[in-house]
Amino acid sequence: MAEALAGFRPARRTPAEPVPLDRALHRVPAEPVTAPHALPGFARSTVDGYAVRAADTYGVSEGLPGYLEVTGAVLMGAEPAVTVGPGTAVSMPTGGVLPPGADAVVMIEYTQQVMPGTVEVVRPVAPGEGVVRADEDAAPGAELVPAGRPLRAQDLAMLAAAGLTSVSVHARPRVTVLSTGDEVVPPETAALRPGQVRDATAVALAAMVTQAGGAPAYGGIVPDDPSALEAALRGALPASDLIVISAGSSVGARDETAGVVGRLGTIWCHGIAIKPGKPTLLAECGGVPVIGLPGNPRSALVVFRLLGVPLVHVVGGCTASPTGSPTGSPAGPPPEPTVRARLARDLPSAAGRLDVVQVRVRDGVATPVFGPSALLSVLTAADGYVIIPEEATGLDAGTEVDVTIYR
Amino acid sequence: MAEALAGFRPARRTPAEPVPLDRALHRVPAEPVTAPHALPGFARSTVDGYAVRAADTYGVSEGLPGYLEVTGAVLMGAEPAVTVGPGTAVSMPTGGVLPPGADAVVMIEYTQQVMPGTVEVVRPVAPGEGVVRADEDAAPGAELVPAGRPLRAQDLAMLAAAGLTSVSVHARPRVTVLSTGDEVVPPETAALRPGQVRDATAVALAAMVTQAGGAPAYGGIVPDDPSALEAALRGALPASDLIVISAGSSVGARDETAGVVGRLGTIWCHGIAIKPGKPTLLAECGGVPVIGLPGNPRSALVVFRLLGVPLVHVVGGCTASPTGSPTGSPAGPPPEPTVRARLARDLPSAAGRLDVVQVRVRDGVATPVFGPSALLSVLTAADGYVIIPEEATGLDAGTEVDVTIYR
Repeated sequence: MAEALAGFRPARRTPAEPVPLDRALHRVPAEPVTAPHALPGFARSTVDGYAVRAADTYGVSEGLPGYLEVTGAVLMGAEPAVTVGPGTAVSMPTGGVLPPGADAVVMIEYTQQVMPGTVEVVRPVAPGEGVVRADEDAAPGAELVPAGRPLRAQDLAMLAAAGLTSVSVHARPRVTVLSTGDEVVPPETAALRPGQVRDATAVALAAMVTQAGGAPAYGGIVPDDPSALEAALRGALPASDLIVISAGSSVGARDETAGVVGRLGTIWCHGIAIKPGKPTLLAECGGVPVIGLPGNPRSALVVFRLLGVPLVHVVGGCTASPTGSPTGSPAGPPPEPTVRARLARDLPSAAGRLDVVQVRVRDGVATPVFGPSALLSVLTAADGYVIIPEEATGLDAGTEVDVTIYR
Repeated sequence: MAEALAGFRPARRTPAEPVPLDRALHRVPAEPVTAPHALPGFARSTVDGYAVRAADTYGVSEGLPGYLEVTGAVLMGAEPAVTVGPGTAVSMPTGGVLPPGADAVVMIEYTQQVMPGTVEVVRPVAPGEGVVRADEDAAPGAELVPAGRPLRAQDLAMLAAAGLTSVSVHARPRVTVLSTGDEVVPPETAALRPGQVRDATAVALAAMVTQAGGAPAYGGIVPDDPSALEAALRGALPASDLIVISAGSSVGARDETAGVVGRLGTIWCHGIAIKPGKPTLLAECGGVPVIGLPGNPRSALVVFRLLGVPLVHVVGGCTASPTGSPTGSPAGPPPEPTVRARLARDLPSAAGRLDVVQVRVRDGVATPVFGPSALLSVLTAADGYVIIPEEATGLDAGTEVDVTIYR
């Protein structure tokens, strides 16, 4: 599993496109964005008070106040009409422009208007106190947001402050979801014939693709027939940045999938030491990464979350996991939510295999949800999952584990 | 802060509306959804192998194999054309329909075709082995997804499996964002006059609203004038489920906001023991919750994340935090991603006040990012934040903390 994660690194990246700022949340900048001018652009008061020359306040105290002549007031959003000379002060709102001549703002709490036109100051200020410099939020040309890190709310605020109304981001990776299986029919099929099942996997894979910043497309349901699969795969390649095949569930169907993918490209691996999910296939066909998922929905969803979602992020230009990803990989999405909990019972596992165990979490206790991998209800009953790493042979009841919470 | 979180519980909930399944990720079901019929709907093989009568395999072993007559094969997606009688077996693909008469499936690994028409079995199976029952994933009427919990990918899979193509969910809360301030101009303003700043807060608040499942609407920029604010607030009420005012930054502007909100409704609290964010206002006007945020963008974003985002979830019908929220509240969204890190330096804090400290995280070390609360760059430089709870008087360097990661 670690080998698969570390080794399969398709080079494909989506091209850049401009998007308006109010649709740019979680989009990935294709290049760093720099400040077109200084921010905030003018020296600005950070408190309500009086703009002064700091030197005029040296040595003042409660016992020995200083007195300054108030020569005017700064209004919000307007250029100051007055300057501050020696022995004078100008009334300031928070966020107002520091008037010429002033180098600090005394908080109103440390002043008192003793008579009209005169303010008493009881605490000294140092130059720069109560003020942000004109370029303190960003100097001209400073990096506002880096390339490769999904934009967060505050990044949008910073770009808006700089007057940037659109940003160049990687296009959403187009992810084609191909379902296969003679037994699989569309979800909208009202009445099933014996042996038929509705396609449960595709809508869930599409949701995970969306969540990872991709644009899912349904490639349809392909029968268990190599030539039909080959035609579907060929047809999907030109309009896909990633192809996901939820392969047939039988051994025969899986082998056929591998055969078709192998004819159209290079198979990186077929079979991964993960439970559930052993028959997973990773390949590249004509520059498009291809993931072949196990046939049953539960295994398919588990594997796609662990292997497919990071791939969507990488193809979509995501390079910066600020904190270092949990897998140690330098690239990838922000971490998923986790909670710490104690295991309610022993979890056996074979060494050399990564186990993904579904759990419910209540009051700090993680209770495993077991059942055949054919059952979706095991996944819907779970709040999250616990990973038993390759090197472990199981975890004892009472062990504190990190549960990754589904969202 | 804890009081504000626990006590301010507006009753407003958005009404139900149907949405198609492929647009239902993270939407909140307005009522539990139950299974219209049994799932998978037929007894289904979980392995490749042979459908048998379990009794026919009792006592077999590698040394003393059993022999069964193969009377046919089940095809994927089709009703079995054969039944299984005593002494006979039927070839099965994974996922195929268990033929009448059979009660178990022997894995192909424990069989060998010794001659055409006869299979050797070297391991016994118990009744039900290798099979999921017709109602094992869901009995008719069983709850597929609960009300009040945002739908996850696997929930969509389960609904699709049941043939449900749409789901009744709470409408997205309509959140109106009102910006105020004589100095504030739209982000698209190319050239600023002295003292003007672009509205940085609104786009970031809108992004957080979207992330929380709400539908943001810009209410425009209102000057620092009580009658203008009152008109804007009155105008926004009919089409809002929640109103957010990023209030003026000066003390005067804040007091005016409180005055206007107080005239139109009930103020729950004005001033919260949180840093940054002290001047926060919580109110309800005509059944619509109203949050007045501090004037500077950084404080506004910090406060909205902690107080506003949970409110969007609650108004949008979210009741079930599967694992219990970190604040101990029974309702609310899934937890945010966190990483554990050690503090690079001491963090002082006043007891009785909740401090939100921005940090960068590298290699397990959290380094605080300090700066005036007027600076957005403090937030954009941060990977996440650390909460110093009310009861603490600070945290020592080296303390292990949970950093909530921005995404």
